[in-house]
Amino acid sequence: MTIAHLTLRTDKPIGAISPRLYGSFVEHLGRSVYDGIYEPSHPLADENGFRKDVMELVRELGVSAIRYPGGNFVSGYRWEDSVGPRESRPRRIDLAWHSTETNEVGLHEFAAWLDAVGSELMLAVNLGTRGTLEALQLLEYANLRTGSTLAEQRIANGRTEPFGVRMWCLGNEMDGPWQLGHRSADDYGKLAAQTASAMKQFDPDLELVACGSSSSSMPTFGEWERVVLTHAYDSVDYISCHAYYEDLGDRAAFLASGLDMDHFIRSVTAAADEVKASLGSDKTVDVSFDEWNIWYNTRFENVDKIRGNQNWPQAPRLLEDVYTVTDAVVFGSLLITLLRHADRVTSASLAQLVNVIAPIMTEPGGPAWRQTTFFPFAATSAHARGTAIEVDVRCGTYPDARFGEVPLVDAVAAHDDAAGRYALYAVNRSLEEPTELRIDLSVLDGRLDGARVTAHVLADDDPLAVNTLAQPERVVLRDLEVAREGSALVLTVPPIAWVELLVEP
Amino acid sequence: MTIAHLTLRTDKPIGAISPRLYGSFVEHLGRSVYDGIYEPSHPLADENGFRKDVMELVRELGVSAIRYPGGNFVSGYRWEDSVGPRESRPRRIDLAWHSTETNEVGLHEFAAWLDAVGSELMLAVNLGTRGTLEALQLLEYANLRTGSTLAEQRIANGRTEPFGVRMWCLGNEMDGPWQLGHRSADDYGKLAAQTASAMKQFDPDLELVACGSSSSSMPTFGEWERVVLTHAYDSVDYISCHAYYEDLGDRAAFLASGLDMDHFIRSVTAAADEVKASLGSDKTVDVSFDEWNIWYNTRFENVDKIRGNQNWPQAPRLLEDVYTVTDAVVFGSLLITLLRHADRVTSASLAQLVNVIAPIMTEPGGPAWRQTTFFPFAATSAHARGTAIEVDVRCGTYPDARFGEVPLVDAVAAHDDAAGRYALYAVNRSLEEPTELRIDLSVLDGRLDGARVTAHVLADDDPLAVNTLAQPERVVLRDLEVAREGSALVLTVPPIAWVELLVEP
Amino acid sequence: MTIAHLTLRTDKPIGAISPRLYGSFVEHLGRSVYDGIYEPSHPLADENGFRKDVMELVRELGVSAIRYPGGNFVSGYRWEDSVGPRESRPRRIDLAWHSTETNEVGLHEFAAWLDAVGSELMLAVNLGTRGTLEALQLLEYANLRTGSTLAEQRIANGRTEPFGVRMWCLGNEMDGPWQLGHRSADDYGKLAAQTASAMKQFDPDLELVACGSSSSSMPTFGEWERVVLTHAYDSVDYISCHAYYEDLGDRAAFLASGLDMDHFIRSVTAAADEVKASLGSDKTVDVSFDEWNIWYNTRFENVDKIRGNQNWPQAPRLLEDVYTVTDAVVFGSLLITLLRHADRVTSASLAQLVNVIAPIMTEPGGPAWRQTTFFPFAATSAHARGTAIEVDVRCGTYPDARFGEVPLVDAVAAHDDAAGRYALYAVNRSLEEPTELRIDLSVLDGRLDGARVTAHVLADDDPLAVNTLAQPERVVLRDLEVAREGSALVLTVPPIAWVELLVEP
Repeated sequence: MTIAHLTLRTDKPIGAISPRLYGSFVEHLGRSVYDGIYEPSHPLADENGFRKDVMELVRELGVSAIRYPGGNFVSGYRWEDSVGPRESRPRRIDLAWHSTETNEVGLHEFAAWLDAVGSELMLAVNLGTRGTLEALQLLEYANLRTGSTLAEQRIANGRTEPFGVRMWCLGNEMDGPWQLGHRSADDYGKLAAQTASAMKQFDPDLELVACGSSSSSMPTFGEWERVVLTHAYDSVDYISCHAYYEDLGDRAAFLASGLDMDHFIRSVTAAADEVKASLGSDKTVDVSFDEWNIWYNTRFENVDKIRGNQNWPQAPRLLEDVYTVTDAVVFGSLLITLLRHADRVTSASLAQLVNVIAPIMTEPGGPAWRQTTFFPFAATSAHARGTAIEVDVRCGTYPDARFGEVPLVDAVAAHDDAAGRYALYAVNRSLEEPTELRIDLSVLDGRLDGARVTAHVLADDDPLAVNTLAQPERVVLRDLEVAREGSALVLTVPPIAWVELLVEP
Repeated sequence: MTIAHLTLRTDKPIGAISPRLYGSFVEHLGRSVYDGIYEPSHPLADENGFRKDVMELVRELGVSAIRYPGGNFVSGYRWEDSVGPRESRPRRIDLAWHSTETNEVGLHEFAAWLDAVGSELMLAVNLGTRGTLEALQLLEYANLRTGSTLAEQRIANGRTEPFGVRMWCLGNEMDGPWQLGHRSADDYGKLAAQTASAMKQFDPDLELVACGSSSSSMPTFGEWERVVLTHAYDSVDYISCHAYYEDLGDRAAFLASGLDMDHFIRSVTAAADEVKASLGSDKTVDVSFDEWNIWYNTRFENVDKIRGNQNWPQAPRLLEDVYTVTDAVVFGSLLITLLRHADRVTSASLAQLVNVIAPIMTEPGGPAWRQTTFFPFAATSAHARGTAIEVDVRCGTYPDARFGEVPLVDAVAAHDDAAGRYALYAVNRSLEEPTELRIDLSVLDGRLDGARVTAHVLADDDPLAVNTLAQPERVVLRDLEVAREGSALVLTVPPIAWVELLVEP
Repeated sequence: MTIAHLTLRTDKPIGAISPRLYGSFVEHLGRSVYDGIYEPSHPLADENGFRKDVMELVRELGVSAIRYPGGNFVSGYRWEDSVGPRESRPRRIDLAWHSTETNEVGLHEFAAWLDAVGSELMLAVNLGTRGTLEALQLLEYANLRTGSTLAEQRIANGRTEPFGVRMWCLGNEMDGPWQLGHRSADDYGKLAAQTASAMKQFDPDLELVACGSSSSSMPTFGEWERVVLTHAYDSVDYISCHAYYEDLGDRAAFLASGLDMDHFIRSVTAAADEVKASLGSDKTVDVSFDEWNIWYNTRFENVDKIRGNQNWPQAPRLLEDVYTVTDAVVFGSLLITLLRHADRVTSASLAQLVNVIAPIMTEPGGPAWRQTTFFPFAATSAHARGTAIEVDVRCGTYPDARFGEVPLVDAVAAHDDAAGRYALYAVNRSLEEPTELRIDLSVLDGRLDGARVTAHVLADDDPLAVNTLAQPERVVLRDLEVAREGSALVLTVPPIAWVELLVEP
């Protein structure tokens, strides 16, 4: 058993936690929409065809803004295909995921579903195969209350009130050669700046996201951000980050994924701040970490990827990664990293929500269930509100080829003034050993006495344990015992574990 | 009283005055079209809804080609919205002026109005949010007599004869960050060249205008012209200049505005000639000064500008500057500057015509009247025809922070061979003192005897006097006494005055 | 009489001859389609309006893939104009050839005609005035069997099976200032790469052709190929070459045209291989010589070119070059050059097929006939199959200003394993003297005995002899006597002659 000393540093607040940090992402991809959130023939479908059990889980998960409709999908997306009478909507092939899109669920249907689950719509415009004009048309259709032909069409299509979309992605992963309309940083930067400026002529208060790098391993990483922002700094509000992690055979390295994400965020904010300085701008561009998750991408490339020029299935089973306890622990550590950067990462989207690399899985005609990753997200979203707070960690380390010495424990905290609650999140990266967390709460200044203290842990004797259709509740959060030692709390955390500690003084 | 010695230099003809120098500009902006030239419910409206009193004033003003439909408006313009049955035309929001465009007046209606007032149509194509293809389609629709689907659509829409538009603007102010589709000189130059080449495949005799700088104070001024023309020199005929002047608190400096315009024209023609030399071209690219006027732009930015993403008024009162006598004197001096460059400025557009920074104002349901600026334009257009002629001026000066010593008097002349008339235009920039103009006409070689000599002056004891709905004729042109002294004429011109002298030997 | 010693080098096989080397080209230009392949009122028209006599000649000519619908035409082409009910198809003006396109013959009709003549469809997409999205839509319409709205439209338009087009040109001659949408190598390279990548997301097995130079005399030649391929190397399969030759008054120089074509091909493949090396790519980009012929282009510029902005004829007589025997001999030598590069030139298109710089001519309501160039093409296509083989030539030369010493004789051979046939092609470039060809076939290793040996020659006492409506068979292929001398064959070839020798051991 190793020991880790944690100290809550309320004297070092990181910043306000944006509710948008708990966003997610629904792409027209695989069974995300069809046979995911939408299955009209399901016994639990509502009058609009949406599964009520899935909606219940989405609410429980606690997601704020949901990014839509892509992702790679958006670079072939023509929004007007997705509105109007269903029987007139065209069927399209989607080159990104090699599927057929029926447009049965479109902008209106998805917005209605969002209203039902209580999440905010975050839209992406197609800057792959379309341009500024079409982005403006979608914006007008979505957000203008009345008085123009496009606004009147939205009303005629059943939506009197505007959708009122505040946050818009200027395309998706335009640095990726796989992207329809992929172009250079210079060319994308110009297009993004042009489109952003035009959209802000409609509404200067929109929050616009320029595409950053698809991952920190892109050959253009860093330079891409610098060039794009040099063009678009004045007209955008966010630069995006996307990161996926998977266990490529070295579990200890996999558990250190948070360090990569941390490095990624620091690099991108440094690039943005460099442009800010060079332009002499007053404005700070934040990070929208609008795709993050565990994703067994190698499996997709090797097994799932659909091939054949006459093979364009509808809602195929694609990217349906099944997440282990280890995956969920890493996932929890990524949330810790995001919180540690709450001052600059003011929007994030767990990619994705249902079936497709998702916390929620469904079976057509059958049940819906929580994957292991569901638990850290739901708990963090529920309790890590208010202000993010640093936690000093003194603990052992283990060697890593990329990062040198990796701390065995990582942690962050939050203080929700309104609820009067402190929440602390930590991971134990040790593969074998439990760790004793000794948490110094002396800053609470005696208020620990009488406080309600609870803790939950995600861990399992089998680090590869998963939840499946057959065993949907094999893995759940468990209560963890907390001992008090003066102004400190002591928890014994098993190996490969994610833990939440709540203190309500 | 100071004295200024003026000498008519018929030995130094500047060049033929293009009738297009007296062009104007109607943009879909504010009450320029709606409640301006067009007001179907007005007692004086004709069967097409156009106000006959306004048409009469436009004819009196004497405008040649009229640029249409923008301006910034054009970068969101889709020409096909504006044709066909009125009841099917879409209502659009115009991002440039934050207004709603009903398309009630479109291409056909405006062309019919032009026919009625006897002016020529000068069209702009949208190179902000559209490209070459749409420009070609408008060109075919407008100018092809018959035989294609687009030509047949125009005929079906009521216009058998083609519009026969000769002069086309390749977008508008593409150097301005406010412009939808704003891009670099390099990118605009390529697009302009591509579009111009394509349009000339339809008709090599078209006269095409590449966008120059939006003003001489743009940071890219000069370099913009050089780069754009390097791409487009062979395929265009004009480079545009735009300039607006306003009294920013220093009236003497304001009265020197003509020097700025003069400097602007010299810079642009020098840039064009430099490109010509570098390409070894035989062709000379002229200046289309297609926006010029007095404009209290600071007032627009501070007061008029419409804000709010749900606030898109129809035909709002925008940019309705009321012009003083001082404004009109400066305005008259700008006409003098344009005439002095008649050899290279072969097209110009007073921006604009009705209600919007305009010589003609209207009241809905009420009268139309002439602003102070109406008079110098109407007089110059009526009489400064034929050949522009230099006038040597010997006079006092006053110091100016920007231009050093500013001559108190500026002047130019014209000789209309057909009418057998000499016309001389001068301004007295003195704020306080009248000036005696002693005009040496010895070159007329004795023909002064028996000549009919008349003079008119625009001036007022109150240099801020204006014409308004309440007092529409507060300011008018007045006759000015002319004394003869041998081969000279002598006029006593009050301070801050514009004067016209006509000699018909 | 000079003597030329030819040696068949079966030990030096050049490579497999792609059937696509015998492609052709039908552009919507002049009377190529209308009054060419299509003339519903002709007595020999089939039920679809296609002339059966022309179809017969096309089959006899032996063309493989036919490039369609342009050429310069394609840069204004909107494919959807050409499909659907004929009565709804729009009439368009074609800026490239200053004509009116009725769209009476469109994609479906042309594909049906191709099925009837047994040739393959090779399509070009419009990258002049359109972009990636429209290319994808045409691809989906043409090649997707079923399941999307576009595929269903094709089916509804009468074509159940997809067109299955394998080979696609990414625009046409984008380096030419005459081209609608002409742009720099850098800009075209980006667009071509973007479009190619997108099309290969639909079907990675498509064969895509990037535009090379319009001719080797373009000022950007070489650099164009290098820059375009630097962008597009990974996503394309071919780089195109276009070359036309004409007798500009120096017949001897004209007869040396094959040397220019040879040099052109070597330059382009060297440029491609240089990019390959710089990218470290495994893939080899081949040459699609998709426009080649004799073309009296100067005549077009001076006489044929249609002018006038209201003059847009339908199917005018344009580019109807009448080919002499000399033209046909040069033409035959170009085929020899193409065969000599069979290892890298794996696609070629004789430009064009009917009436427009064509081997086949027609008279409305009257006959169809073979031009002189018909014969070398038909013979070569019929017999030069299998493997291309070098022929060593030892012969006299004549001086040329550009190429130094030009061999009087040029030759290449082919071996069709399946047919067991050797075919040898040679030209005699001498203006006055016959040449004795002594062909060493010792590699045939005694199999010459008993072999069937035939030879045909194209030559005439009048080197300017032509076939016309009045004299449609003035020039034909004639048999040529072949003497055997041991393992050699001896032919006496007249001056300015093309000859085919067939040996079937």
